[in-house]
Amino acid sequence: MRSLRSGKYGYVNDPKISVSYDSLQEYVETLERWVKSGDLIAEKEFYSSVRLRGAKKARDLLEKGIQYLEFRLFDLNPFAPYGMELADAKFIHYFILLMAWLDDTADQEGIKLGKARLAEVAWEDPRELSVYAVEGELVLLEMLKMLEQLNVSDEIKTIVKDKLGQFADPNQTLCVKVVAAIEQVGSYQQLGADIAQSNKAKAFERFYALSAFDNMELSTQALLFDAIQKGLKIEILDERDQFISLQFGDHLEYVKNGNMTSHDSYISPLIMENKVVTKKVLAKAGFNVPQSIEFTDVKSAVENFPLFENRAVVIKPKSTNFGLGISIFQQSVTNREDFAKAVEIAFREDKEIMVEDYLLGTEYRFFVLGDQTLAVLLRVPANVIGDGVHTVVELVAAKNDHPLRGDGSRTPLKKIALGDIEQLQLKEQGLTVNSIPAKDQLVQLRANSNISTGGDSIDMTDEMHASYKEIAVGISKTMGAAVCGVDLIIPDLKQPAEPSLHSWGVIEANFNPMMMMHIFPFSGQSRRLTMNVIKMLFPELP
Amino acid sequence: MRSLRSGKYGYVNDPKISVSYDSLQEYVETLERWVKSGDLIAEKEFYSSVRLRGAKKARDLLEKGIQYLEFRLFDLNPFAPYGMELADAKFIHYFILLMAWLDDTADQEGIKLGKARLAEVAWEDPRELSVYAVEGELVLLEMLKMLEQLNVSDEIKTIVKDKLGQFADPNQTLCVKVVAAIEQVGSYQQLGADIAQSNKAKAFERFYALSAFDNMELSTQALLFDAIQKGLKIEILDERDQFISLQFGDHLEYVKNGNMTSHDSYISPLIMENKVVTKKVLAKAGFNVPQSIEFTDVKSAVENFPLFENRAVVIKPKSTNFGLGISIFQQSVTNREDFAKAVEIAFREDKEIMVEDYLLGTEYRFFVLGDQTLAVLLRVPANVIGDGVHTVVELVAAKNDHPLRGDGSRTPLKKIALGDIEQLQLKEQGLTVNSIPAKDQLVQLRANSNISTGGDSIDMTDEMHASYKEIAVGISKTMGAAVCGVDLIIPDLKQPAEPSLHSWGVIEANFNPMMMMHIFPFSGQSRRLTMNVIKMLFPELP
Repeated sequence: MRSLRSGKYGYVNDPKISVSYDSLQEYVETLERWVKSGDLIAEKEFYSSVRLRGAKKARDLLEKGIQYLEFRLFDLNPFAPYGMELADAKFIHYFILLMAWLDDTADQEGIKLGKARLAEVAWEDPRELSVYAVEGELVLLEMLKMLEQLNVSDEIKTIVKDKLGQFADPNQTLCVKVVAAIEQVGSYQQLGADIAQSNKAKAFERFYALSAFDNMELSTQALLFDAIQKGLKIEILDERDQFISLQFGDHLEYVKNGNMTSHDSYISPLIMENKVVTKKVLAKAGFNVPQSIEFTDVKSAVENFPLFENRAVVIKPKSTNFGLGISIFQQSVTNREDFAKAVEIAFREDKEIMVEDYLLGTEYRFFVLGDQTLAVLLRVPANVIGDGVHTVVELVAAKNDHPLRGDGSRTPLKKIALGDIEQLQLKEQGLTVNSIPAKDQLVQLRANSNISTGGDSIDMTDEMHASYKEIAVGISKTMGAAVCGVDLIIPDLKQPAEPSLHSWGVIEANFNPMMMMHIFPFSGQSRRLTMNVIKMLFPELP
Repeated sequence: MRSLRSGKYGYVNDPKISVSYDSLQEYVETLERWVKSGDLIAEKEFYSSVRLRGAKKARDLLEKGIQYLEFRLFDLNPFAPYGMELADAKFIHYFILLMAWLDDTADQEGIKLGKARLAEVAWEDPRELSVYAVEGELVLLEMLKMLEQLNVSDEIKTIVKDKLGQFADPNQTLCVKVVAAIEQVGSYQQLGADIAQSNKAKAFERFYALSAFDNMELSTQALLFDAIQKGLKIEILDERDQFISLQFGDHLEYVKNGNMTSHDSYISPLIMENKVVTKKVLAKAGFNVPQSIEFTDVKSAVENFPLFENRAVVIKPKSTNFGLGISIFQQSVTNREDFAKAVEIAFREDKEIMVEDYLLGTEYRFFVLGDQTLAVLLRVPANVIGDGVHTVVELVAAKNDHPLRGDGSRTPLKKIALGDIEQLQLKEQGLTVNSIPAKDQLVQLRANSNISTGGDSIDMTDEMHASYKEIAVGISKTMGAAVCGVDLIIPDLKQPAEPSLHSWGVIEANFNPMMMMHIFPFSGQSRRLTMNVIKMLFPELP
């Protein structure tokens, strides 16, 4: 047989069940009659090839109208991961268009005849020519004529010609291909297992992604994945803008970029966008904030050099991200020229700059949601560790060969580059890309710890003393944020926090904090933050 | 006498009251002794020229330290609106610096001598040279030397030289100037009344502004004005960023740009920023939204002409600017060439265009706060009305001569320009700038109704049917906004709203809507929206 679905082993009703397609009124009435007579248990037990859709009961269609048609006569393609190839879907699209295009129409008798012939073809030996091959070829030739007139792309014509070829050579049909594949691997079960394993491997290749939504950010993909798991109704409002809606029952929520929601207060990102205001707000609330002064021109900044002389300071643009324009004097700034140069670099990125106390310690990112610090992350600058055998180039290549590393937009981590900045960094350690570092030698490839420049993300949630997690929550609350990324400098994460800048200091607070680096860290435990976002939005979820 | 304040008619203690400035400890102890002995009723009754500040009781200074010094020996300058000229304040600043700069210091005897001489000078005839003129000149010459060494700007040196001149020519002193002014106007009372009236006129010249905060937007000035009236504690967190905090008791609120607050949900501006998402969200909630389709190239837009044929449509660039590139087919577009031309015009202004259902009617701005539409405004394109006598140039000049009109950033309304666009608009009406329009003839000077191009703002709050105000509130709530500017197209503002685009349609919703055009409209009632913002933030206010 050619088709299980359309043959007698598929979904078929008793031949006497005939529903009229002459008008919507008649469709509804004849369908209802069969249910009333008891020949159908319910309306949905009518197995038509085309079902009219748009209402729960057929009668409601008379008022609401037909919203869409459901075609129910396609056998699944076991070779296609989603059960149907895109080319076949396109073919069906234009075939339906052809049905509307042709002048001919069918009455009830015609429909009956069509059904009978469908069953007949379904029952044919798939390796033989169909008895209706000529009629099929004529229909497809009409289709090609239509495509010509509609000026449709060659891609579609090629698909139709391919179908045309299947009438002449049944070996090209899907059915025969399935048979051939079964014969080749030995058994029906084996073929099924082979395909399933291959599909599974493909699905897990980019396990962090939700491939149907691959045009969106990974964090939105993760959120959608979890939303689907939880049975939420999802809708993409603007793909490019990462704008989606989630719905559970009557409860509707909007989400942008994975964690910007109605739970945040509008003033909170406005505060966080402005580092000066952020500091004033946090200092006023009693948090440890490094002191800073702002300048709007190079001259006045440099004139005030004596204020900073012999102090450890950071010079940075007032707003901007990704560490651009930041200079750090870790020991202390002693030279006016060095200071002036750092000021100039910062002014390249913004019209206003800040000179800030530099805090000694390690920077950690606290991901806060509501009353809880859900994750703590340590970001380590791009690096490799020597083995006494391989060159830096080889070590980098090996480290880059990791499923999480890629371009950084379609992957949670970024491949380490070996550009000018990395080579300069190597030079400072007396190395080149072709050096062979000693066993266990840590080779720094970057000074900055951003994940976007190949840095490593290390989950430290369980290691961090609870007192700092509470501080991060307090900072988030002071900002009025529901979701907040708090950056704290901490010299010793095991010691409880004290109310002094020697114990800890807050560097900044970020709205729309990155989630992927916590969900898929380079090392340490994964924290599924997107699920927490969903629970925050829908506390009623079971 | 030269000085009331420093003479015997000013605040003076019994000469025996001597408080030591030798150390903070002695200051506190001697002061307390006079209070204990009953010679002073309270610490604050000690009328020193310099008061140490930072604690309510002098003794607390020993722990808290001196926070600042209060200088209490300046006579007010009646000619200066704030009682002191900026130049004098600068002089005092550098004079105090000089006191720290000079090696000399004074002991208790020196202070006593200084006090006696101050009283002596205060009692001198102001028109005569002071007996201490030479000593004073020597001090100021030292001051000029210091300024030279500090490399201070010429402005300061000029101020000091001016003071130096006053020793040689007493007519230059403030005191003699006051005497001369009294003689000129006839009496002391008359001079006071004249100055007061002039100050009042100046204060009311820009009645819409709060001059001490004139570097901020007018809307923030209005909010600060109301906050001060209500007794709130105000703080400028970032002047340039229009970021302030308001406090009542322990209740602290942050405000940016006059009405962005913690009451707005963060998702709401994100929705409003995206016109496509805004439309989807509003349509989903059941509001009348004109349908639209976006195109990114001329070809695909023109290919889709059949979708719009025989419909009333607007063709516009996706991000519009002052109405540039907009074509309207008010009746319906019937001709493909006309459509194509309109598409081309729109693409001159943007890379993306929209074809949107055209709504017949007038656009009104609804200012919504919480559950209420507080103001409705009609914006009318820049225009003048003829009187049969004056030219267009003269009519425009007369209309521009209005206290509310100016550059539009420091004034609520903008002066009408007579540039190319306005002259083209005149030409279309068969006029030039030198034409004399007939009496009551409406002369259009712009096609767009923006206030920023000289348009008029007309309050229509009381005229608008309540049903539209409710709709605007519903739209604001759907957006999750606390404060929202909703633009509705309404053909007849007296007819109750109906659920059809023929009755009304929503064009867009704006976060951080302008308030000044409602507070100071061109005509109609003023709506003091800033007070409503304060009441929203502080419902506990009496």
